[in-house]
Amino acid sequence: MKAIVTVMLKVGVLDPQGKAIGHALNSLGFDAVGEVRAGKVIELELTESDPDRARAAAEQMATKLLANPVIESFRVSVDG
Amino acid sequence: MKAIVTVMLKVGVLDPQGKAIGHALNSLGFDAVGEVRAGKVIELELTESDPDRARAAAEQMATKLLANPVIESFRVSVDG
Repeated sequence: MKAIVTVMLKVGVLDPQGKAIGHALNSLGFDAVGEVRAGKVIELELTESDPDRARAAAEQMATKLLANPVIESFRVSVDG
Repeated sequence: MKAIVTVMLKVGVLDPQGKAIGHALNSLGFDAVGEVRAGKVIELELTESDPDRARAAAEQMATKLLANPVIESFRVSVDG
C-alpha cells in the first residue's frame, strides 16, 4: 500500500523557493501566475494493507521525521 | 484557480534522498516502510478560471521550468 505525504510551509511562513519559481515563470512569459508555494512530497511503500492503519503510520512518520511542525504542515493520502 | 504540479524522479533513476529518508524511518522503528521516493510539489495560483486551460498552462510550465524531463516526470492536478 502506498502513502503519499505532502509537506508544505505553513501559510504565513516566507517561501523564498516559491517566490523564485514565481519570478522565473513570470520572466518566461507566464503572466497568469500569482502566488507560488513549493513543498516536498514523499511516497512511501508500506507493507501495511489496511488503509486506516497505513494512514496512521504515515501521519506518525510525518510528525516524527518528514515535517517540521514549527513551520510546516502536511497532508497524507493513501492509495492501493 | 489552483494548479498543483508534482515532480518525481523517473522510475529507475536513483533517488538518494528517498533512500536516506527510508533508512532514517527504519532506524526510528518504522519497519513497515519499503521503498521511499522523494519529490517536489509546486502549488501555483493561476488567474485562469477554465480548468482545462489552467491544466494546459501548468503542464507547459512544468515542461519548461519545473521538471527536468531527462530524469523527472510530473503530474498536474487542478482544483477550484
